[in-house]
Amino acid sequence: MRVAEAKTLDKYDDIAAFLFENPAQFLSVIREAHPAAVAEYLADLPQPEAIGILKSLDPSRQAEILSHLDEDLQLKVFQELSRDEKVALLLEMSPDDRADLFKALPEDYREALLPALAQAEREDIRRLCSYEEGTAGAVMTSDYATISPDMTAAEAIEHLREIAPDSETIYYTYVVDDQHRLLGFVSLRELILAPRDAKVSSFMKRDPIFVRVSDDQEEAARKIQKYDLIALPVLNEEDVMVGIITHDDAIDIITQEQTEDIEKLMAIGGAHGDTPYLKTPAWVHFKNRATWIVALAALGFVSGMIIHSFESTLMSLMILALYMPMVADTGGNTGSQAATVVVRALALGEISYEDIFKVLFKEFKVSLMLAVVLGLISWGKVMFLSQDASIPDGFSLGAIAIAIALALSIQVVSATLVGAVLPMLAHRFGQDPAVVASPALTTVVDITGLIIYFNTAKLILGI
Amino acid sequence: MRVAEAKTLDKYDDIAAFLFENPAQFLSVIREAHPAAVAEYLADLPQPEAIGILKSLDPSRQAEILSHLDEDLQLKVFQELSRDEKVALLLEMSPDDRADLFKALPEDYREALLPALAQAEREDIRRLCSYEEGTAGAVMTSDYATISPDMTAAEAIEHLREIAPDSETIYYTYVVDDQHRLLGFVSLRELILAPRDAKVSSFMKRDPIFVRVSDDQEEAARKIQKYDLIALPVLNEEDVMVGIITHDDAIDIITQEQTEDIEKLMAIGGAHGDTPYLKTPAWVHFKNRATWIVALAALGFVSGMIIHSFESTLMSLMILALYMPMVADTGGNTGSQAATVVVRALALGEISYEDIFKVLFKEFKVSLMLAVVLGLISWGKVMFLSQDASIPDGFSLGAIAIAIALALSIQVVSATLVGAVLPMLAHRFGQDPAVVASPALTTVVDITGLIIYFNTAKLILGI
Repeated sequence: MRVAEAKTLDKYDDIAAFLFENPAQFLSVIREAHPAAVAEYLADLPQPEAIGILKSLDPSRQAEILSHLDEDLQLKVFQELSRDEKVALLLEMSPDDRADLFKALPEDYREALLPALAQAEREDIRRLCSYEEGTAGAVMTSDYATISPDMTAAEAIEHLREIAPDSETIYYTYVVDDQHRLLGFVSLRELILAPRDAKVSSFMKRDPIFVRVSDDQEEAARKIQKYDLIALPVLNEEDVMVGIITHDDAIDIITQEQTEDIEKLMAIGGAHGDTPYLKTPAWVHFKNRATWIVALAALGFVSGMIIHSFESTLMSLMILALYMPMVADTGGNTGSQAATVVVRALALGEISYEDIFKVLFKEFKVSLMLAVVLGLISWGKVMFLSQDASIPDGFSLGAIAIAIALALSIQVVSATLVGAVLPMLAHRFGQDPAVVASPALTTVVDITGLIIYFNTAKLILGI
Repeated sequence: MRVAEAKTLDKYDDIAAFLFENPAQFLSVIREAHPAAVAEYLADLPQPEAIGILKSLDPSRQAEILSHLDEDLQLKVFQELSRDEKVALLLEMSPDDRADLFKALPEDYREALLPALAQAEREDIRRLCSYEEGTAGAVMTSDYATISPDMTAAEAIEHLREIAPDSETIYYTYVVDDQHRLLGFVSLRELILAPRDAKVSSFMKRDPIFVRVSDDQEEAARKIQKYDLIALPVLNEEDVMVGIITHDDAIDIITQEQTEDIEKLMAIGGAHGDTPYLKTPAWVHFKNRATWIVALAALGFVSGMIIHSFESTLMSLMILALYMPMVADTGGNTGSQAATVVVRALALGEISYEDIFKVLFKEFKVSLMLAVVLGLISWGKVMFLSQDASIPDGFSLGAIAIAIALALSIQVVSATLVGAVLPMLAHRFGQDPAVVASPALTTVVDITGLIIYFNTAKLILGI
């Protein structure tokens, strides 16, 4: 019994499973289930089938579901529709989804469709499409509720009731002057609590948080996060309100930016953030990864040359060659850790370029501790592994072990500092800190590591 | 003029700057600005000053601001208050923030405070504190609006107006039966649009999306994201509603989980996610990083032994030693990339363990392409760098270059597959995929890489 309840309670959460058990209810579920759940279900069906089901629905339902499908499926469905169906669908879509779909359409499609739309929609689409990708303007929607400051609470609520059906949210209402400049905002909660005949201007919140159309979408998302907002108003340079960004957009923006950060950390290019892993063709994955990996392999030439230049040293003391990888790896690992922590702290706004010396000092302390521990381990490694190694006269294993351990310790400190400083410099010069982390960094500290390694060895062992 | 407007429009966005220009308005700003902005401002002040300002505010304002401060500052402030002030503050805090603060208090404090609280609050705190960290139960709040299915729309709105002041959100209202089991939900938008005397049961949404108290907090956050929810109901095993998780919690959860993922990718332990970088003492950073790095250094023994076991091969063909680091690095880089992409796809729910063969096949195709490109580069590297190297009789540079290039290509393929499969296995066995990525992986594929390297060389060159 209880299980059964639970099952129906969350049935819309896994439509496929539910439909399998209750095929009779297929259509009602497709019509009533949460659009996101239906979209997920359709995405797993063979495309012709998914498109067939979507075509059987009315435009407003189509629009709801489409907005949860990824772009290429959206396009495929859209192109299957007749011109009239296309227009009907576009009119039902929310302005931001509509603009995104429109941007993805082939040029000739757009030209063919625009005349079929009313003046208002045409301009709305043109305007929303005009903002640069990644800006607040490009993610905002133009369906939002505004009221004038001299309305009473009762009038405002009545107004909201009228526009509710096609407004993205009615929980935040923005108070604007006759030139549509933002004066303040009221939440529906405040409207409901206010005396019916109180003027909006008497209880509205002044100085609302906002972003400019040209601000970075991540900045907008972080403001929504910081101030726990349901929606954030977007103003143009004249302080005129032109749109809102909603809490659900904020989560998607943050997830997408985070994917990009991680991929940059691992030197993976391309906005894989948008299309799911399995839907991305192998050669696209290849393109995204190859660029950096090849660049790193090229950079590897330098380490190759350095090793080459110390060939004589290696010839005279073969054992040094055996421990090159150990020094390289340890440097790479400690450097990557430092870089990761700093990149993340920058991304979360915990530190800025001004803190560079504080950061370097902290990383220096951390690296000293790591250097001691790792130095001892590597010393033990050499003493143990090479106890019966053939060592040329004039050299003692003990001295060699100390030389290697010392070199490794110095490398740990330098790699950590390099790992901390590179992201901060990238940040300082308007680059994304993440790109200089991990693989890129590993290759860089390999070079410094080898130089430190061989010179320390020569110095201590007097080769 | 316009600039001035803009300035005041977003003044609460940077209080420090604003107060610097308008010191006279200090108190009014501290009292009226967005609590998150005030919290940010206080966090940068010397602690005694910050605490002094907070103490000067009334409990409800204190509670608002406190919820935006990080935990250790919250505790410091709290301990500065008199017992009565403490109680007053606790009563004003939202249940989830209150429970979190309570959990952080020293044992004796809690015992001393509990009796001063009313029965209801005591039980609420005990209950919220009872859920395991990281579960939906531990992040939910118990301030939410419920109505009965036979209320009319008008009655429901009237009810909401009454409870609005101390309910986390009134925009989603949950319909429960007499045993408080979840039957459905209505949004305030629907309530406002519904005919005044329509019964809630006639227009409420049935089968709402929900999570169980024991579900992972990230699952809850992802549902809020997937279904664009403002709040998500939390049920116990008896389908009784016990709390809600709100959209702003979802963003914080996703950001926090993200930080943990990235740090795991880089083999950094500890929940650094909570305390900001600079506020975390160096030795804590050290602890967080050392564990893994030391483990990896220990694991490095294995690679050391392998190199050691091939010492004779290296002796007879010194040149092989020079290119060990190149093979190790390339394998580490390609492997980390594969692992990163897979870890991310798992985190976003794009793939699950069932897809392992699809994933392996895709990664295989990607790695073949990478292998060809990187193999050619490494061949060129050897031919160029070692053109004048002293090569023992019976060996040709060409053959050696081919052997090294081939070994590297095989290593790229194997490292990529290992990088893809390890996170999926970790996921399959309930471990966090991220922990087996990057540094950990690098060290693992170093081992496979060396074995591939030396055996390929021996095979091709017949050493």
